Amino acid sequence: MQTKIVLDESRIPTHWYNIIPDMPGPLAPVINPRNLQPVTPDDLLPIFPMAIIEQEVSGERWIPIPEEVREIYRLWRPSPLYRAHRLEQALGTPAKIYYKYEGVSPAGSHKPNTAIPQAWYNRQAGIRRLATETGAGQWGSSLALACSMFGLECTVYMVKVSCTQKPYRKSMMQLWGANVIPSPSEFTNAGRSILAHDPDSNGSLGIAISEAVEDAASRADTNYALGSVLNHVCLHQTIIGQEAREQLALAGDYPDVVIACCGGGSNFAGTAFPFLADRAAGKNVRCLAVEPASCPTLTKGIYAFDYGDTAKMAPIAMMYTLGHDFMPPGIHAGGLRYHGESPLVSQLHHAGLIEAKSYRQTACFEAAHLFARHEGIVPAPESSHAVRAAIDEAVIAKEEGKEKTILFCLSGHGQLDMVAYDAYLSGGLEDVEYPEEMIRESLAKLPKVEL
Amino acid sequence: MQTKIVLDESRIPTHWYNIIPDMPGPLAPVINPRNLQPVTPDDLLPIFPMAIIEQEVSGERWIPIPEEVREIYRLWRPSPLYRAHRLEQALGTPAKIYYKYEGVSPAGSHKPNTAIPQAWYNRQAGIRRLATETGAGQWGSSLALACSMFGLECTVYMVKVSCTQKPYRKSMMQLWGANVIPSPSEFTNAGRSILAHDPDSNGSLGIAISEAVEDAASRADTNYALGSVLNHVCLHQTIIGQEAREQLALAGDYPDVVIACCGGGSNFAGTAFPFLADRAAGKNVRCLAVEPASCPTLTKGIYAFDYGDTAKMAPIAMMYTLGHDFMPPGIHAGGLRYHGESPLVSQLHHAGLIEAKSYRQTACFEAAHLFARHEGIVPAPESSHAVRAAIDEAVIAKEEGKEKTILFCLSGHGQLDMVAYDAYLSGGLEDVEYPEEMIRESLAKLPKVEL
Repeated sequence: MQTKIVLDESRIPTHWYNIIPDMPGPLAPVINPRNLQPVTPDDLLPIFPMAIIEQEVSGERWIPIPEEVREIYRLWRPSPLYRAHRLEQALGTPAKIYYKYEGVSPAGSHKPNTAIPQAWYNRQAGIRRLATETGAGQWGSSLALACSMFGLECTVYMVKVSCTQKPYRKSMMQLWGANVIPSPSEFTNAGRSILAHDPDSNGSLGIAISEAVEDAASRADTNYALGSVLNHVCLHQTIIGQEAREQLALAGDYPDVVIACCGGGSNFAGTAFPFLADRAAGKNVRCLAVEPASCPTLTKGIYAFDYGDTAKMAPIAMMYTLGHDFMPPGIHAGGLRYHGESPLVSQLHHAGLIEAKSYRQTACFEAAHLFARHEGIVPAPESSHAVRAAIDEAVIAKEEGKEKTILFCLSGHGQLDMVAYDAYLSGGLEDVEYPEEMIRESLAKLPKVEL
Repeated sequence: MQTKIVLDESRIPTHWYNIIPDMPGPLAPVINPRNLQPVTPDDLLPIFPMAIIEQEVSGERWIPIPEEVREIYRLWRPSPLYRAHRLEQALGTPAKIYYKYEGVSPAGSHKPNTAIPQAWYNRQAGIRRLATETGAGQWGSSLALACSMFGLECTVYMVKVSCTQKPYRKSMMQLWGANVIPSPSEFTNAGRSILAHDPDSNGSLGIAISEAVEDAASRADTNYALGSVLNHVCLHQTIIGQEAREQLALAGDYPDVVIACCGGGSNFAGTAFPFLADRAAGKNVRCLAVEPASCPTLTKGIYAFDYGDTAKMAPIAMMYTLGHDFMPPGIHAGGLRYHGESPLVSQLHHAGLIEAKSYRQTACFEAAHLFARHEGIVPAPESSHAVRAAIDEAVIAKEEGKEKTILFCLSGHGQLDMVAYDAYLSGGLEDVEYPEEMIRESLAKLPKVEL
């Protein structure tokens, strides 16, 4: 039985799919946090190259992928599409379960799909150095890899507590040549002001963002790069869905439902957007974003203008949010702990064009365990949310006695997350309750934007 | 430029290549350590299924791969063959460097290539449970994966000190359902006798082998499985070289030199044997086994009868050896710290049909670092030995101004070995001197076999 569909590297997509011209209405403006007015390209030029700024607002449906970027993509793309025969048998489901596996990249996740073009456009613009932040390290390691490929310097402000809790990804960044700085640091005003009040601060993603943006804004040779949320990041990830679509066609199939985990939104966007585009051609595909119950942005947040970061330095966007100072409880899927959501994904959800669902982490680890026992691959804790939802869809198909084709994105492997599996296997995994009160409090602090 | 050559899963080899009929002479007998007489199949039946025993001595050149085994191989095979364009450019070499990447398996190394058929043949023989030993965990995790795929129980005696030093691979084994027992344990006579003398023993691979063999020999439902050295293990790995051969042909190429790291020998055997077979057709390919300077079995050992393990429980084989109680200095390439060598690889080396070379670990990590910066993938410390040798061949080609085609096997990724890279990056890597005195002492204790 065919288990995986591989494509020759000549079939790496030549264009990214830009969903902006196909959105159900105009995009809401992005707001400058300093003057509460719409952001202009000039506001962004200190930290982004013009090519990226153009992609952020482009009305072109297909944006060509530079040949130099496709050259690097060849190191792991096209990624394989698997049919989960063994999982299907274990579930006794009539459903067909396919998964697109992005863990084959050198960094082990989908993040290099956007790190590579971001590094490339910056180098083309004469930038010699990129600054970014990272929590658990998936994004930081991907940008370090990308900078190594194009000979750029890379500085990663890594949340201090993660430096000690996730030393492996820190080492990978260093091996790829990045300068990893525990945040808060003495290198920025933002870092120094935190340390002045709290010399032992463990740091947070919000602080690390502030440090990286300040670093980029204050040096002419340096720009900033972000691993999710923004339109251009979602755009770069659309190679996932495009490849999956072609691979499914080779298998003579088309999905009834497309599933991906959703933190900042780029993994979901990259997987689902190319299928959403098929709706115009009458295809009736459901798209399901899966998030943790402890950080339920789409399922429990509101659609409103909010800051992108805790420190109110990042632009204000119209999006689903739990409030910019919402601090989600600690869960192992660190990549899904963002208070906001990609504005594109948010608008589609608000328009009722996509679905969202949340799960507690134990249910996700149970699903990942079943998956690993039958399919071999150990899923990343983030990806385990998509595994859970896919299994539940397959079980529903069994109960209804219906054939159904399910596609999900296995966005990364979990070989560097075995501490989380240890906690699960030893019964020591805490299932965080939905933090209702916290969300209510943080939602009371949204900015007032009047246009 | 074509970077990787992928094959559709229909091209997974249908047969393993058995080199025994093509060896330069008859195989030396394997000796029973209890009576110093040649081992009979009856000696082996308590711990191996007959299908495996037959493969160990088979004179058939091609042995069919069971369809059920190929079905599991599809989860990651055929593995990709890469052309290292970016590394070539960095070296400025006229040589073409190809690498076959075995890190795509769910366990991250080539070991599942043999774990899967071993589990299958045991299940076919009615065995319900397998016992094995593991050091750093590459083999233990691969057998745990294989047992999970076929619904067998799996018990892994893991060297106690590795349980705490390599907790990630222990967790992977447990996730795949294996029972991981720190060795020495209270579960076997071998373990109890060690603990009686030294309750705080850190364990060793030799002790763990003794425990696993005793466990298997004492239970009718249980067999033993070994991850390297033996003929059938080398046999199963030949899918590596067969696939690489076909992929190179698609690229219109054929290697001048084939390189693989060499511990127990199965990775080297699997990569090189299918190319050695081409010599009969007049192909003039060099095959180079690369080992650590701290455990230089082929380059500094002698060709003699020796025990397979420290405890003198395992069979005695004619092989290159440093002496069965040689304890190699601690290096990060744990998979290459075996005192002996596959009898097949040994015989080929003794006949002058293959080459061997040894490197100190700093030189290997330097090569792996260069590789990761240009090719992205982080090599396993074991595989870094092959990377080093391939780079040196490419540099020689540059000096000689010769075109040359180099193939090496990148047998695993190093994402679970970042502690080793940390030591390298921080300058804290110790370069172990060639332990001449130790080798002389241990070589004085070889068994006297008279046939």
